[in-house]
Amino acid sequence: MADQPSTGPVAGTPEDANHAPETSPLAPDLSIGEVRRGQKPGTRYVRVTRASERPFLRQGATRWRATLAAERPTSGVGKFMATVRRTLFGEPIASSNSLEERLTKVKALAVFSSDALSSSAYATEEILLALVLAGTGHLNVGLPIALAIIALLTVVVLSYHQTVRAYPKGGGTYSVASENLGRWPGLFGAASLLTDYVLTVAVSISAGVLAIESAIPSLGPARVPIAVGAVIFMAAINLRGVREAGSIFAIPTYLFIIGFGGMIVVGVSRLMLGMVPGASLAHSAPPQATVEATHAFTVFLVLRAFSSGSTALTGVEAIANGVPAFKPPESRNAAITMTWMAVILGVLFSGATLLAVRLGIVPHEGESVISQIGRLSFGGENAAYYYLQATTALILVLAANTAFNDFPRVGSILAKDEYLPRQFAFRGDRLAFSFGIVVLSSISVLLLIVFRADTHLLIPLYAVGVFIAFTLSQFGMVKHWQRVRESNWRRSATINGIGAVMTAIAATVIAATKFMSGAWIVLILIPLMVLVLNSIHRHYQSARKQLVLADGPMRLRLTMTADRPVIVPVSELNFATARAVAYARGLSTNVTALHVVTEEGEDTTEIEEAWQERYPDTPLIILESPYRSFQAPFMAYIDALTVPPDVPLTIVLPEFVAARWWQGFLHNRTANRLRDALYRRPNTVVVSVTQQLA
Amino acid sequence: MADQPSTGPVAGTPEDANHAPETSPLAPDLSIGEVRRGQKPGTRYVRVTRASERPFLRQGATRWRATLAAERPTSGVGKFMATVRRTLFGEPIASSNSLEERLTKVKALAVFSSDALSSSAYATEEILLALVLAGTGHLNVGLPIALAIIALLTVVVLSYHQTVRAYPKGGGTYSVASENLGRWPGLFGAASLLTDYVLTVAVSISAGVLAIESAIPSLGPARVPIAVGAVIFMAAINLRGVREAGSIFAIPTYLFIIGFGGMIVVGVSRLMLGMVPGASLAHSAPPQATVEATHAFTVFLVLRAFSSGSTALTGVEAIANGVPAFKPPESRNAAITMTWMAVILGVLFSGATLLAVRLGIVPHEGESVISQIGRLSFGGENAAYYYLQATTALILVLAANTAFNDFPRVGSILAKDEYLPRQFAFRGDRLAFSFGIVVLSSISVLLLIVFRADTHLLIPLYAVGVFIAFTLSQFGMVKHWQRVRESNWRRSATINGIGAVMTAIAATVIAATKFMSGAWIVLILIPLMVLVLNSIHRHYQSARKQLVLADGPMRLRLTMTADRPVIVPVSELNFATARAVAYARGLSTNVTALHVVTEEGEDTTEIEEAWQERYPDTPLIILESPYRSFQAPFMAYIDALTVPPDVPLTIVLPEFVAARWWQGFLHNRTANRLRDALYRRPNTVVVSVTQQLA
Repeated sequence: MADQPSTGPVAGTPEDANHAPETSPLAPDLSIGEVRRGQKPGTRYVRVTRASERPFLRQGATRWRATLAAERPTSGVGKFMATVRRTLFGEPIASSNSLEERLTKVKALAVFSSDALSSSAYATEEILLALVLAGTGHLNVGLPIALAIIALLTVVVLSYHQTVRAYPKGGGTYSVASENLGRWPGLFGAASLLTDYVLTVAVSISAGVLAIESAIPSLGPARVPIAVGAVIFMAAINLRGVREAGSIFAIPTYLFIIGFGGMIVVGVSRLMLGMVPGASLAHSAPPQATVEATHAFTVFLVLRAFSSGSTALTGVEAIANGVPAFKPPESRNAAITMTWMAVILGVLFSGATLLAVRLGIVPHEGESVISQIGRLSFGGENAAYYYLQATTALILVLAANTAFNDFPRVGSILAKDEYLPRQFAFRGDRLAFSFGIVVLSSISVLLLIVFRADTHLLIPLYAVGVFIAFTLSQFGMVKHWQRVRESNWRRSATINGIGAVMTAIAATVIAATKFMSGAWIVLILIPLMVLVLNSIHRHYQSARKQLVLADGPMRLRLTMTADRPVIVPVSELNFATARAVAYARGLSTNVTALHVVTEEGEDTTEIEEAWQERYPDTPLIILESPYRSFQAPFMAYIDALTVPPDVPLTIVLPEFVAARWWQGFLHNRTANRLRDALYRRPNTVVVSVTQQLA
Repeated sequence: MADQPSTGPVAGTPEDANHAPETSPLAPDLSIGEVRRGQKPGTRYVRVTRASERPFLRQGATRWRATLAAERPTSGVGKFMATVRRTLFGEPIASSNSLEERLTKVKALAVFSSDALSSSAYATEEILLALVLAGTGHLNVGLPIALAIIALLTVVVLSYHQTVRAYPKGGGTYSVASENLGRWPGLFGAASLLTDYVLTVAVSISAGVLAIESAIPSLGPARVPIAVGAVIFMAAINLRGVREAGSIFAIPTYLFIIGFGGMIVVGVSRLMLGMVPGASLAHSAPPQATVEATHAFTVFLVLRAFSSGSTALTGVEAIANGVPAFKPPESRNAAITMTWMAVILGVLFSGATLLAVRLGIVPHEGESVISQIGRLSFGGENAAYYYLQATTALILVLAANTAFNDFPRVGSILAKDEYLPRQFAFRGDRLAFSFGIVVLSSISVLLLIVFRADTHLLIPLYAVGVFIAFTLSQFGMVKHWQRVRESNWRRSATINGIGAVMTAIAATVIAATKFMSGAWIVLILIPLMVLVLNSIHRHYQSARKQLVLADGPMRLRLTMTADRPVIVPVSELNFATARAVAYARGLSTNVTALHVVTEEGEDTTEIEEAWQERYPDTPLIILESPYRSFQAPFMAYIDALTVPPDVPLTIVLPEFVAARWWQGFLHNRTANRLRDALYRRPNTVVVSVTQQLA
């Protein structure tokens, strides 16, 4: 049956083209029944028995498309690694399947707001922690500070409404700033954002672990391992490519809103009903504990409390980045969702701060302020309290997901603009920007370990970057409106202008008040990153310029003649060197073999005689190396040859390839180092004739 | 002057041959005035102006000898590294300068005995530490145990006298055991010795640091850094190649003998003169401290004390290894020196143990027993005491030098027999076996860190290996005498036989009594090492077998025709790829370029049109990769080509070489991985056409 000429049903099918004989160019032969890639004793090939196993589909005379069969590794280790990867991250996804799901407002709120909303879980605590330095008597000031932050939030959200309207395809800081303000502000914005995304992961995860620790104190010593495990878990999910999957994130976000909102409703009700001794909505209860002042109550202290609390605004820009993910009309839906988010965040944050102040809560080590509010509001460690802690921990960990979405995306945009290595722009098996995900999680893990997953140590580094990015983005928008001059442009420009000035002031306050306690690190890091981004860009540009193809073969410095000079290093006359010599003699009529004598007193008569017998027309040079080194005399020898500058010098290297990794240590150390040295030599071509060992 | 033809004094000198014109083979042009290797703006060449700068001297028609000028690196980094190396380790030494200094008996005693003699600084303490477990009441038993060890020492030394006589060229355990007992006992002996050399370094250095700490207790916390520093210092000295330099080692060894001997003389005198209250040569003083028994006084405890003390015998074999270093008559001088060594060791060890017991010394943490004896004998912490501590510390550190001599030497012998990687057999710049030195110091440093440079933790691992090696060596000698049957062979065989049995019993006792406290590690490690040595050997043998050159070109699987198949992967049409294509087209008439489309929707018309215009006769294949990978479809494509098995497939890779290391991250990640994959593919030749970026 298989031997009969295939007529009838097979002819005319799309696979038919694969049977067309092809002589030039070198084209794969994919007839069914052919022996092809895979593992088989003694060979690397298996028989292709079904059309579905063909690694290629013909698309045209010189055009082919690879199939999943071409992705199949052929070696044992490769197969094992592939199985591990498929199990952890799933089957590869073809590029053509990269349609993105559009989000309803309900799902979008959950996806984009987890970062912003989750900050209500720690912003209040950070304000109180700053104020408590002046003793427990001044904790009341937390309330006006929270209101000031909410005012700032309003300004920022109104300002971002303009961005969403102007950039329906996504108005990230880097795009807006570089488009309107130029390259350097764009790079500063990008560097600020990248820094802050890393901190988002570290801070959110640390705060999430603290929420767990507040409910289950015995987990305290395992804080860092739990935090690192959470980062790895987030990285694995994101490497699987479950990006912006609304349904996964919708549930925890709404569960958190219910729990946190419930706490505020119950707490405020109890205050109104006079169920808290000595406290009402207008009067605070006596402090739960008394802390002596270690610092005078100054303007600086208030500003520092404001700075710490302004972390509540981080994550607000997420919706502006993600406008294209909304169902049409994208801009309108995004703006509405942003308003919802701001309102919810405002209520949660101000409610929590109000309760904290009125209930007389004093921040202390080992239990979060929210946990204390929860216990007092719900009247003890009951089911409601544990629900609150669980959903808070969950949303804090999920908040890191915003960074896992945005860091690799910003990274890929920078890589496409050649400010970051190209790896950042490659989409992996599962269409995720794998490299960015791995980089983000590695740096976060490092931060978590160095700062012992302690939110209070990380917070001073946080928010500076976000406010720099806010400021650059809003100033960019002002420029945008001045440039575009649409109807109502003056109004939009004014709103963005106010936003820019407010965020600039906030950024200055934050940088100044947190400078000594950690912000200086970020303020040094961001300009450094800008310099790195810029030098990467300069390198790529310079490389591109050097690689521009001029006309005429002379500039290539490659004159190819039959007697081009070829050198073969020969240690002994064996199968591998004989293959190299045979290949070299096939390349040129001008082959010289070089034997470096590294051992004093080595008798070379044997190799010289054997050589003379086998290759009488190829000279063998004996090079004595009295200092026993191989590479230095070899390089010096070829440097001293008189080869015209446009003639490439070809070095044919005989190389063993060991079957197992450890065997690699037993061979080729010399060959590998020589190869590296030859690569750095101009107009030198290295030909590796390999010999695989069983 | 320089332009004139060189006549007169220059003609006829040995350098004259360098001026001879040479057309084939490719020979260096070394005329004075030629521009040659080195650094010069824009080129890699400098002008050779003096004959002494010539990198090569002609030795014959096809034979050259490299000079120190050929060792000179040409790149900036290379020059810097070379300067650092020269400063630390000195100028390279030519192989022809490797004459070894012969040692007088006085120098030889110092060189070879530092290891053995230094063990008297800790052997007594180890015995007492074992006995004190049964309380301070049984410390007296230390004396008979020391005498038993000295009896064993006598047997071993008499036994080694026979070895020295039979192997005037050096009777190391590996040589004697493998020659007489076969391969496996030889490997066991070698593995035991290598293990013990590493422990010698760790134990001696730890004990040396303890001697320093006993005198200056404030250095306690810096114990591990000091120990690691000492190892690095020893490694540096040995990398300099100051091997067996008698004069360096003679002085500290004799200073130690004077100090330690003086302590014994003074101490014994004071005992005899009744200057120690309640003690004489026959009666012990009451213990300095009372320690409650935590363990019953059993036979096991006594045997364990014996095992701990038997470390005194380590290093005894050093003279047998080094017979050829003695002045003639080598064997006789070596035997005499060995006797001296045994007598001195016996006196120092038994004297120290006698004093320790009679002075009622109790071992405790933080001060060595010798330090306690010294203080009591010399009557306080006076100059004599500090002299004792200083010379003890010095000899203990220098004792490690025996291991630094022997480990690399045994390693090089094993490497020559193909049981260890070849690197062990290479002599470095300074003729030292650099690789062995680096391996020894790395493992020792690791041990010192893991065991916190604590002698007592390391001692249980020690001595087992030495006694296994002793046993194998002595049994080998018995076989040797049975084989050779010289005059008096029965007597020699009997002596070696007694030695073998005694050391075998000692090895068993040591292994059994120290098993739980650490010897099990060594008893697992040694067989594991033997397996590793053996599999390295099997690999080298198998590689050699595979590389045997059969006759006929068919087995080479290399049919070289003008239309050999060549594939060039082309990402874009630039200078680097154009060079690669030009080289490929010079190689063959059958070149195919392959462009892998990794980005969905990439428009390939531009590259296809530019290609068609530039290389109309070389086909460009477009290979779509829907899963965005480059390597898998590329490999699958070449796997699916129908190439006859004896025709090599040539892949020409265009490669960028970045000027700085960090730029390497920005290029070539794909090319490097592809190259690795191609190396593993049978009958595939990889041609790297490099393009250096400025």
